[in-house]
Amino acid sequence: MAADEPFHTDKLVIIGPGMLGTSIALGLKKRGFAGRITALGRNRSTLDQAGQTGAYDVTTDDPAEALADAGLAVITVPLSGFRAVFGQIAEHGGPQLVVTDAGSTKASVIADAKATLGDLSRVIGAHPMAGSEKAGPLAGDADLFVGKPCVLTLSDTDDPGAVALVRGMWEALEMRLIEMSPEQHDAQAAAVSHLPHLAAVMLVQAAEELGGYGLASTGFRDTTRLASSNPPMRADILLANQDAVRGALKVLRERCDAFEGLIAQGDKQALLDALERARAARDRWAATQGPGGGD
Amino acid sequence: MAADEPFHTDKLVIIGPGMLGTSIALGLKKRGFAGRITALGRNRSTLDQAGQTGAYDVTTDDPAEALADAGLAVITVPLSGFRAVFGQIAEHGGPQLVVTDAGSTKASVIADAKATLGDLSRVIGAHPMAGSEKAGPLAGDADLFVGKPCVLTLSDTDDPGAVALVRGMWEALEMRLIEMSPEQHDAQAAAVSHLPHLAAVMLVQAAEELGGYGLASTGFRDTTRLASSNPPMRADILLANQDAVRGALKVLRERCDAFEGLIAQGDKQALLDALERARAARDRWAATQGPGGGD
Repeated sequence: MAADEPFHTDKLVIIGPGMLGTSIALGLKKRGFAGRITALGRNRSTLDQAGQTGAYDVTTDDPAEALADAGLAVITVPLSGFRAVFGQIAEHGGPQLVVTDAGSTKASVIADAKATLGDLSRVIGAHPMAGSEKAGPLAGDADLFVGKPCVLTLSDTDDPGAVALVRGMWEALEMRLIEMSPEQHDAQAAAVSHLPHLAAVMLVQAAEELGGYGLASTGFRDTTRLASSNPPMRADILLANQDAVRGALKVLRERCDAFEGLIAQGDKQALLDALERARAARDRWAATQGPGGGD
Repeated sequence: MAADEPFHTDKLVIIGPGMLGTSIALGLKKRGFAGRITALGRNRSTLDQAGQTGAYDVTTDDPAEALADAGLAVITVPLSGFRAVFGQIAEHGGPQLVVTDAGSTKASVIADAKATLGDLSRVIGAHPMAGSEKAGPLAGDADLFVGKPCVLTLSDTDDPGAVALVRGMWEALEMRLIEMSPEQHDAQAAAVSHLPHLAAVMLVQAAEELGGYGLASTGFRDTTRLASSNPPMRADILLANQDAVRGALKVLRERCDAFEGLIAQGDKQALLDALERARAARDRWAATQGPGGGD
């Protein structure tokens, strides 16, 4: 850990030691984090696998043991499990405990926290924009987060020390931090993450309905890759972010209608203009990505 | 060229020596093709670049010179140029000339051929399912086609020798041949190629409208990759295949409505079922692809 990192806590807890949580633990250990890292989970075989990764000093299914003296808890359970986890934190966390998370939606996480915690000033929501199609502790990757964006959803009532601690942890994993409101995050994530996932799924459905797998090549492969990602996790996300996702689906439907019209009219110039604009926008974005991120 | 290959002609012409045509010429030379390969083009700088690749024995903008004694012509111009090319073939091609193409739609190519050629028995339509975002002769790749599918659209009136010659050429490039009618091809290509391209474009449009580039990561990158492909070529394809593309857009719109409904109702089980089915279908397809093709 670099000397100027504000990230120091003796006792870190990963709540839900799956692929994501274990990647955090492995990433911190690889970068010199010297504190104790505890895996808190409910599933015995997941805890056993977590123990095999070398990422954790302690694995336990006892929230009292894990949380009593912890300085920082990172929630990496599926979105449908957040409410129960905040209940454990309310019951077993000490006044020193700072909380962050890796949930893919942010307004729903705050709503879940409010349902059980009186004081949210030490709960600093985060969404690391990194993932894998693989699941489970054994799929953990110490470099999963390097160079990727991480959204922090801050508010005026946040405790400054808690913000510094959480910021330091994600920066220690070499993420690029972006701050915005939970609502902004959810609308933008719907556009660039949840809608692309649904589009991938819908393209597979279209191939099922219309045929054509024999002709499918790299374009189909890349465009549908997200359809192979974890359905329970994705279903949780779509429901937790339903307003923004419905808004994004509405935009997609309008774009379908617009292209249908241009093609039906045979308006080649307008079609070409639309494709050129999209290509330019996509290439501008790709140019902002690191090596390998632009194609 | 293996001894059992039925592919032998002394004089091959690539009409439109861009990325695709030059990949064919380079691929054949790499695999031992000993005949003469001529590049026929209209653009002087493209012909100059084609000459630099080493793929061609002759480069010319004179259709009479290129076609008079040719045995096989491969049309690799954009779809909007096919009608003019068939005009050149009608005027300058000898009775021995066999024609194939790499057009991304097939019914429109046959319609263009019919407009100028009396006899289509030596025109054997093909669609090699391989591409690149790069354009021009210098982007040619001798191994572009290896292991990829190539559709041949055959009919009862085809000349058997012409079919054997065309089949031999694509097989020499190590493609997997698939036979179907032009209409089947166009419907299936709409599903697994043209609709995925439009979906990529529409996802970029949604990001432009809703924001979120700062959060976009590898999922967005892969899902939108096709939006960076050549707009004039894509506009040609969408218009040449407009009935099938409109049908595919209709399916996508219906799927948007279906997901909107499931999400609005909060029907987690139905949502999960739909995601699971799509993942299983996509994984089944991916398992049929070669190494590197499945993720």
